[in-house]
Amino acid sequence: MRGAVMHAPGNVQVEEREDPKLLAPGDAILRLTATCICGSDLWPWRGIDEVHDPSPMGHEYVGIVEQVGDEVSTVEVGDFVVGSFFASDNTCEICRAGYQSRCVKAQPMGNEGAQAELLHVPMAEGTLVATPEMPDADLIPSLLAASDVLGTGWFGAVAAEVAPGKTVAVVGDGAVGLLAVLAAKQLGAERIIAMSRHEPRQELAQEFGATDIVEARGEDGVAAIKELTGGLGAHSVVEAVGTQESMMQAIRSTRPGGHVGFVGVAHGVELPGEELFFSEVHLHGGPAPVRRFLPELVDLIWNHTIDPGKVFDLELPLDEAAEGYRAMDERRAIKTLLWP
Amino acid sequence: MRGAVMHAPGNVQVEEREDPKLLAPGDAILRLTATCICGSDLWPWRGIDEVHDPSPMGHEYVGIVEQVGDEVSTVEVGDFVVGSFFASDNTCEICRAGYQSRCVKAQPMGNEGAQAELLHVPMAEGTLVATPEMPDADLIPSLLAASDVLGTGWFGAVAAEVAPGKTVAVVGDGAVGLLAVLAAKQLGAERIIAMSRHEPRQELAQEFGATDIVEARGEDGVAAIKELTGGLGAHSVVEAVGTQESMMQAIRSTRPGGHVGFVGVAHGVELPGEELFFSEVHLHGGPAPVRRFLPELVDLIWNHTIDPGKVFDLELPLDEAAEGYRAMDERRAIKTLLWP
Repeated sequence: MRGAVMHAPGNVQVEEREDPKLLAPGDAILRLTATCICGSDLWPWRGIDEVHDPSPMGHEYVGIVEQVGDEVSTVEVGDFVVGSFFASDNTCEICRAGYQSRCVKAQPMGNEGAQAELLHVPMAEGTLVATPEMPDADLIPSLLAASDVLGTGWFGAVAAEVAPGKTVAVVGDGAVGLLAVLAAKQLGAERIIAMSRHEPRQELAQEFGATDIVEARGEDGVAAIKELTGGLGAHSVVEAVGTQESMMQAIRSTRPGGHVGFVGVAHGVELPGEELFFSEVHLHGGPAPVRRFLPELVDLIWNHTIDPGKVFDLELPLDEAAEGYRAMDERRAIKTLLWP
Repeated sequence: MRGAVMHAPGNVQVEEREDPKLLAPGDAILRLTATCICGSDLWPWRGIDEVHDPSPMGHEYVGIVEQVGDEVSTVEVGDFVVGSFFASDNTCEICRAGYQSRCVKAQPMGNEGAQAELLHVPMAEGTLVATPEMPDADLIPSLLAASDVLGTGWFGAVAAEVAPGKTVAVVGDGAVGLLAVLAAKQLGAERIIAMSRHEPRQELAQEFGATDIVEARGEDGVAAIKELTGGLGAHSVVEAVGTQESMMQAIRSTRPGGHVGFVGVAHGVELPGEELFFSEVHLHGGPAPVRRFLPELVDLIWNHTIDPGKVFDLELPLDEAAEGYRAMDERRAIKTLLWP
């Protein structure tokens, strides 16, 4: 099969890879309908994360079940499925508490390389959710978004305890930040402040439910949020970048007793303990347990209640994956969908 | 009046201070029945926090109302009252959300110097809670504990989301840690692991409700907690020390999705963002909003349901405050009560 492999920062090639096989009786093999490039794929592309060996890339996927192991009965050959970017058994104590991304048997799907034609999925029963029937083509991008960016933005909003009547601020205008805006709207936030200085992203944020746009960053951004909230700060802040500046901006934009949901993969971040102590905010985040939210998200998409697929503003054939990386790196595209 | 003043690290003197006066119509003046020395008073005693000028010391107090301003009606002259270590209006949006220690008008009582005969209390209606009648002498130490250490341990347990059926670990065997054990018991925890290597403190922890004692610290302590919890970590961990080691021990002892409540004043702590991200714990803490809990805590003490005053294992006249500091610094005493 064809699949994207990163050989070094800035060097992704779509090449022949071995077809995946069932390795355990709980596995499934999918023929992918669509896959995409994640903001987190840009960390190694930019050389911020090391690239040790040629690495199959991609962890977001939707597709049709092509094979299942003997122990798989909740999904069948021919089903259209969405899966999380972490495989999980969905039965252990941690999964049952809603933290499937930290399942005691969790396996990151990035190791499988989902920017490809076929995908090996461990623990298929725990990982995959089937749609009610074969989806129309216009639903594919949104279902694909549920595999990571929607689920991650949603987790950010849930971790920030977004609820009716609250004021929410979102730091970061990438796909995850924009979908945190969508999640905040669905979760009933009264006011949603999107922090963005890019006009097309501001527009999408407003389409997703943002009531205010703040262009300022850092301390100025904090001051702007304070000014919009009677000097107190937002009740809920979603952090969707992962840098020192964005984390501190999120913490300082939150009122005492408020909640920060952080879903940007923290890179080189050191949180000052004393400031965190006196800020008196709640802090929660990490790799999103997308599987917790998948049934609900698939339902919202299936009923056309939400259209998260709008974050894909570039669609390319899988063979042109490298151009998809470049477009995202240069911020020409919010998110790139790849058709295998 | 007589009051304790710190002149330099290791140098506390009880000397003549000016009697406090009403400064605003919402103020009260108390004649203190009892006061005490806090673990946080040891930071400047040890030279870890700077001592700039001679500083009146103390922020924990119970006493009898001696004067009130024109706007004070919820407490009257002659009432026996307990107050929080932060004065608060208890009416602003932050107070109403339960974060009185970050009241928009919050004033730290440490500035007033409660290790004294008399105490000026700003915003008396928001800060003070009267007991139903004059308490018996045996209730005084417990009511005094409610002013800070009990309220702080209680907040740690609440911040760690202690609840029935959960396993709780407490890092730190000072008065706050021991009272976090008591709080966890009251809040219904199924299993309470106290981390302590001091026999008298282990005994008090057990008396307060600890089901297990772990003597190991640091990585060994984490391993011990994991071993006691099926490899997963505790649901709730209270951090009651405030050092880098204790914070990391608390975070690493918590299962994914679990909660860390940190109430030790963080000193020189830097939390690694990436580890925090992948730990997937909830983190919440800060100066305890004791006022939130005071009515309930006074009630539990009044009804003899809890006896937090047991943490006072040394009682001295106010004039011997310096010996109280020394005894706590040298860990000869858990906590020193001072009789003015």
